[in-house]
Amino acid sequence: MNATTLLPDVQSRADSRNLAIDKVGVTQLPFSFCFASTSDNQALPQNTVGSVDLFVSLPPQHKGTHMSRFVQLLRDWEQPLSYVAMREICLLARERLDARRACGTLRFPYFVNREAPVTGESGQLQLRITVDVSVGDCEELIVTVSGPATSLCPCSKEISTYGAHNQRCELTASVKFHADCEIGVEELFEMMERSASNAVYPTLKRVDEKHVTEAAYDNPKFVEDIVRDMAQTLKADSRIAWFRCGSENFESIHQHNAFAQIEWPESRKDAW
Amino acid sequence: MNATTLLPDVQSRADSRNLAIDKVGVTQLPFSFCFASTSDNQALPQNTVGSVDLFVSLPPQHKGTHMSRFVQLLRDWEQPLSYVAMREICLLARERLDARRACGTLRFPYFVNREAPVTGESGQLQLRITVDVSVGDCEELIVTVSGPATSLCPCSKEISTYGAHNQRCELTASVKFHADCEIGVEELFEMMERSASNAVYPTLKRVDEKHVTEAAYDNPKFVEDIVRDMAQTLKADSRIAWFRCGSENFESIHQHNAFAQIEWPESRKDAW
Amino acid sequence: MNATTLLPDVQSRADSRNLAIDKVGVTQLPFSFCFASTSDNQALPQNTVGSVDLFVSLPPQHKGTHMSRFVQLLRDWEQPLSYVAMREICLLARERLDARRACGTLRFPYFVNREAPVTGESGQLQLRITVDVSVGDCEELIVTVSGPATSLCPCSKEISTYGAHNQRCELTASVKFHADCEIGVEELFEMMERSASNAVYPTLKRVDEKHVTEAAYDNPKFVEDIVRDMAQTLKADSRIAWFRCGSENFESIHQHNAFAQIEWPESRKDAW
Amino acid sequence: MNATTLLPDVQSRADSRNLAIDKVGVTQLPFSFCFASTSDNQALPQNTVGSVDLFVSLPPQHKGTHMSRFVQLLRDWEQPLSYVAMREICLLARERLDARRACGTLRFPYFVNREAPVTGESGQLQLRITVDVSVGDCEELIVTVSGPATSLCPCSKEISTYGAHNQRCELTASVKFHADCEIGVEELFEMMERSASNAVYPTLKRVDEKHVTEAAYDNPKFVEDIVRDMAQTLKADSRIAWFRCGSENFESIHQHNAFAQIEWPESRKDAW
Repeated sequence: MNATTLLPDVQSRADSRNLAIDKVGVTQLPFSFCFASTSDNQALPQNTVGSVDLFVSLPPQHKGTHMSRFVQLLRDWEQPLSYVAMREICLLARERLDARRACGTLRFPYFVNREAPVTGESGQLQLRITVDVSVGDCEELIVTVSGPATSLCPCSKEISTYGAHNQRCELTASVKFHADCEIGVEELFEMMERSASNAVYPTLKRVDEKHVTEAAYDNPKFVEDIVRDMAQTLKADSRIAWFRCGSENFESIHQHNAFAQIEWPESRKDAW
Repeated sequence: MNATTLLPDVQSRADSRNLAIDKVGVTQLPFSFCFASTSDNQALPQNTVGSVDLFVSLPPQHKGTHMSRFVQLLRDWEQPLSYVAMREICLLARERLDARRACGTLRFPYFVNREAPVTGESGQLQLRITVDVSVGDCEELIVTVSGPATSLCPCSKEISTYGAHNQRCELTASVKFHADCEIGVEELFEMMERSASNAVYPTLKRVDEKHVTEAAYDNPKFVEDIVRDMAQTLKADSRIAWFRCGSENFESIHQHNAFAQIEWPESRKDAW
Repeated sequence: MNATTLLPDVQSRADSRNLAIDKVGVTQLPFSFCFASTSDNQALPQNTVGSVDLFVSLPPQHKGTHMSRFVQLLRDWEQPLSYVAMREICLLARERLDARRACGTLRFPYFVNREAPVTGESGQLQLRITVDVSVGDCEELIVTVSGPATSLCPCSKEISTYGAHNQRCELTASVKFHADCEIGVEELFEMMERSASNAVYPTLKRVDEKHVTEAAYDNPKFVEDIVRDMAQTLKADSRIAWFRCGSENFESIHQHNAFAQIEWPESRKDAW
Repeated sequence: MNATTLLPDVQSRADSRNLAIDKVGVTQLPFSFCFASTSDNQALPQNTVGSVDLFVSLPPQHKGTHMSRFVQLLRDWEQPLSYVAMREICLLARERLDARRACGTLRFPYFVNREAPVTGESGQLQLRITVDVSVGDCEELIVTVSGPATSLCPCSKEISTYGAHNQRCELTASVKFHADCEIGVEELFEMMERSASNAVYPTLKRVDEKHVTEAAYDNPKFVEDIVRDMAQTLKADSRIAWFRCGSENFESIHQHNAFAQIEWPESRKDAW
């Protein structure tokens, strides 16, 4: 008999309030891991540092969950993380904590390479990735990718004798896949980035700067155009069951931002 | 004929992509205003500084919205803001921008007074308030109140010969009201705060500190207990049609937080 | 004899480690107040919500300070805050806590009006203000003002056949005044804003947008030009004894920012 | 002759304002790298994701610096980062940009293992590290380590019949080393952590929770005690030339925090 068994297990006692808890667990758990963006390992798994929220449901009759098991479960996970692995972690949490449902969120930065359009000078762009998974009654996997691009205002261009205001924007797409489908975060962001006036680049030499300046001027886009073009691209991909995409433009002529968003189809009930 | 009419109105042109936009507008607009917590003015309107997001829907045939009108509309609003006023602002946005739907979010700090339990020394506690409103197809008003409290762990108390770990926690409740009902933010937070091990106070003298230390020790609560008690209080209030309440406990013995959440009833379709 | 005097005063006991503490006190105290930007009340005092840090020094022989007095002192302050008032608060903290030195930091948003260049449409711009004060051995008052402007890249303009990348930038200046001098935050930001390619405006109609687009194109500035022009303006003002000014440009063609900073004169010993 | 040489080099032109720039360069550059905490490689280099600011000084006669070189220089750095490597990066920036001075800041999370006091259950604690380096006129290297611990209030313990308020605190120490000395971040944080009422742990089973609850109760510390004990430990280490150490306690009975700080010796002129 070890020391633990001598101590009362307060969490396991009965509760009389007759109230189930939808989610109970840990938040903001710092986590250093390796992320594999696609199951077929086309992209090399990447080392990163993020944070995890992990929860289970708790039936009315139980007073509390066992918090340390969430931490142990993540600590003992030895394979690279991925969409699928995040789902397995939720399944494991459900099992270990004897719950009906489990859900979790993984947030982390992910780097993609971008080469300058003329010189080919390379550099790393940082995307922000969120993977939301639910298992149990309501199976769901949502991948969210955010990253920067350039937008140039068509109105400003057309009404001005010269110049046009332009700015950095933040593109975001949340996506659910059809069964047995998935899209890696690199590919997803490439689909998104094409909808802006231009991509942003880590390293630009003078000839590249000339190129991107003129390319953005040649491709003016309202925030409405950006989300419509992004929505068209995402709708056309047969692997995608549902998405919500948006762009937030950090207007160079204002203190506030311009924002637009499209969700498709309206209901997200049917997808994985 | 003024100068504006000579310039092309690019936003008003036709769009051929056949894609409606769910939300387009401005985000992070800084806003200084006066907030009246209840319609009957029981609480004095309070000066505060927050930020606003304001959006309309855009039909497939229109290329763009007119961003400056959102800013003008908020600038020209002269009455105190309130739940009802935020709804009127959305109705006005829908009208001015000739849209089917409009929605908006108002975020701001709000102060309530808290008197120390023994000496009565007063001080101000800062709550964070969010008011989310949609008008059009889907009418919705959600008020979210967040604020601090104290939690003390029942397990730690029971298994330890002396002491018990305790910590600041952040209580959050999002609420929808039945038609013609509302609850001011002060009253809402009082309902929430009662569910913790104890309230926090801005000013505590030594006799107060003795009191709150012992009061928390006498009233241990798991994060599960806090949300269950909060849910019970909110469910019992006939003005409330739907809520989602949670507590995030900044565990003093860990780097990560403990969190629990209850939503009731599961569907939030039926409420205002 | 009241209840407090019966409880031991642990903080007032002796300490044997022979170590003075430079700063001890409260941080992140939420504070709702009215700020008067200049002593002569040329600008109307403005309601705002910020936060305060307030500290005193503690001699080696004392075990602890009395935290509740900081909170009481701020709670009981009834006049508008100002540079001078913040100094008086520090003097009061020093006195009430029987300390040799006291220092404090007040952070808050402050709104200024900006009218569109052609239509004159008005709107509010939000500045971020910090007031740092020390009293005791080392008397110091530093006012920091931050706010947005537009920058347009001279290199991009010159090397490109058309267009030029531009972006929002954040201007920041920290300033110390000569004895008996001061500059209100509105006036300070006006001095700073002139150094950018253009100001930003809350409300712009189409003719205004044409104007600001062309004005920025006519006035290209590297981040280096912005800080040099800002430094020239600040140096030329006889009320200023020391400053550090900078600009952070949120490059529209990159994910990272461009930044430059000038401090003058190098040593900040001689000023108030 | 390549394309670049045909384009004007605007940055290299002369400037007539006669104003040197203290710092010009890039900020918030996202960076994925491997960090070696000590030069002797006692700790395994650790993969992490952070951000870099990198600057040079600019003499009065030059109009601008060349921003892309900062990005290239970091991109081409292939060895693990370390204190020494960060200094070499600054030396390289100074050379590549033909500057008199260069400085940089590297910010990143770093993980250390912590075993539960009774069961030995392991887990990862995340520290936040900042390395600030200047080269040129003023050589300086400052390492800052922040991480969580537990504090328990001695006053609350002594005046209360039972219990004592306790909370998570954030310990921070900035350190300069004597020539040819250094201390790895793990060792630094171990020195800091000992000064709190107790360490925090990622994974605690019930017997561990009993242990840490009682250990903190047996070791009450004011925020003043924590910084004094931290200062004593750091002063006693012959490798340390200068430090500034602090603790911010997220009081469980208040919304605001308690904070204390000691700097030693007062002047930081003499150290590396």
